[in-house]
Amino acid sequence: MRAVRIGLLGCGTVGAGLVRLLVAERNRIEARYGLDLGITRILVRDPSRHRPGVDPRLLTGSALDVIEGGCDVVVELIGGTHTAAALVRCAIARRRHVVTANKALLAEAGAEIERSAARAGVRLGFEASVCGGVPVVRAVRQGLAGDTIEGIRGVLNGTSNYVLTRMGEGLELPEALARARDLGLAEADASLDLDGEDALQKLTVLSRLAFGDEPVRRVERTGFEGLRSKDVRAAARRGEAFRQVAEARRIPGGLALSVGLRRVEPPDPLTGVEDENNAIVIQARAAGSVFLSGKGAGALPTATAVLSDIIAVAGAG
Amino acid sequence: MRAVRIGLLGCGTVGAGLVRLLVAERNRIEARYGLDLGITRILVRDPSRHRPGVDPRLLTGSALDVIEGGCDVVVELIGGTHTAAALVRCAIARRRHVVTANKALLAEAGAEIERSAARAGVRLGFEASVCGGVPVVRAVRQGLAGDTIEGIRGVLNGTSNYVLTRMGEGLELPEALARARDLGLAEADASLDLDGEDALQKLTVLSRLAFGDEPVRRVERTGFEGLRSKDVRAAARRGEAFRQVAEARRIPGGLALSVGLRRVEPPDPLTGVEDENNAIVIQARAAGSVFLSGKGAGALPTATAVLSDIIAVAGAG
Repeated sequence: MRAVRIGLLGCGTVGAGLVRLLVAERNRIEARYGLDLGITRILVRDPSRHRPGVDPRLLTGSALDVIEGGCDVVVELIGGTHTAAALVRCAIARRRHVVTANKALLAEAGAEIERSAARAGVRLGFEASVCGGVPVVRAVRQGLAGDTIEGIRGVLNGTSNYVLTRMGEGLELPEALARARDLGLAEADASLDLDGEDALQKLTVLSRLAFGDEPVRRVERTGFEGLRSKDVRAAARRGEAFRQVAEARRIPGGLALSVGLRRVEPPDPLTGVEDENNAIVIQARAAGSVFLSGKGAGALPTATAVLSDIIAVAGAG
Repeated sequence: MRAVRIGLLGCGTVGAGLVRLLVAERNRIEARYGLDLGITRILVRDPSRHRPGVDPRLLTGSALDVIEGGCDVVVELIGGTHTAAALVRCAIARRRHVVTANKALLAEAGAEIERSAARAGVRLGFEASVCGGVPVVRAVRQGLAGDTIEGIRGVLNGTSNYVLTRMGEGLELPEALARARDLGLAEADASLDLDGEDALQKLTVLSRLAFGDEPVRRVERTGFEGLRSKDVRAAARRGEAFRQVAEARRIPGGLALSVGLRRVEPPDPLTGVEDENNAIVIQARAAGSVFLSGKGAGALPTATAVLSDIIAVAGAG
């Protein structure tokens, strides 16, 4: 049995999900991987606030307490780019393995963070940054390492897909969005979801895995502007669908990334991706078309990806 | 740049595909992973026979020439269980990493081979043993390591799925099978495909990854007996489908494995899996349902999985 001490930065939706998941999966992980996973400290904004299921003695308001407090893996779940970047760099400098779900940070500085981690001899896991519990990062990074990827195309934002699914059933955009908020799928401000920025960040992360250092020559991003509910309903009645499609493909001299609403129809596998699900089609030269789909968001699905990465950076799994 | 010397056992369909793929992907793999991959020797039955694209000086009729001839990774592609088991054990004893596509061997002795590899401190890759170029082994082994898998269910045999797809369009079984043979999808003797034995071997491999050492309490396997073409056609007209479904699930005291023909209908994602494609639904406790599909057979898709494993056991990717 080997102890793995986890320093947790952030205890929001995914962080709290991870705490619960660690309790539920602890025995299985001990038996299967010989790892005894335990949280050493948790960074939160307000350590005095009660959090159900979380030992209050672990809470701290100091990031350095977490990173320097004798941990093997730092899990970054605070989101955003400024503070998160500083803390991830600090953790790598202190030679902690890092697991993060932060797509914005990786889209902005992923290449540099990967290089720092490699230089410091620590591992970096970010399965949770794209498509929640669906292991697309491993599929692209390792599963298709032996093949040249020609393009990737997918539904990467669960909120907008939930909204489009409800609109296909007859709801207007504001009602569909209100329902997504009721289910905890959308923030009060869902603009990052609807305008394609969230999907573009995830596409940027996947694209670097798929295409390495190929330069990005063109980026197109369009939101829900001009979308008419009656068109979404009519498409659904014909067995077609509107989807927010994120696509990366090779063009002369580099890559083109795009996110925008597209009308799709069978046999395009994105047609059947409903509700808050995510999906991706990876077009590979020799392996052909590989399709993955599943829950792309939510506390527990995302927490499973974080936990799988913790097991991997600890050298098991 | 680090040299990785590959000893190849077998140069049939997948082996010849790997030789071609290594040529095609060599520059990309050097640039991306810093690995210089080269084949040292190739075991074949008749070294005097000309093989297009294969350097005849690499061919040998002696397995020990391959395994002891200064290689880092032994790739086992001869199939079958008896000789393959002896050669894999020999390679592990000589401390070579091993990559294999041999589902029959892994179904029979996978646990023991994994333990030997761990004791010898070498890595074992077997992504190519299940679902060709679709990275389901990584999805189950690593991608969902953080979650409890409740069940797996899929179309794991491309030949029988191709035959069922053609029968849905009106062909009788013998015609559909003849067409599969013409396309190189079926051997002269397709009984392992149709009777479910091939799918059961793959299910056994996945099941051990998903459920660890849970004992198998029940195995059911049925073939195409009693299947009537008119039923397959009628199902297809209704938008339903017959599929050879392989399923592993938890029952009291262990696991139940089954392979047999099932009638499926939307929204079951197996309904849309056509031709020689493979697909799998992984039901996980916290992550929910994860679906993967793609080309499950063929020289190049399977060779990409072998090559991804070579990159992984060499410590990159």
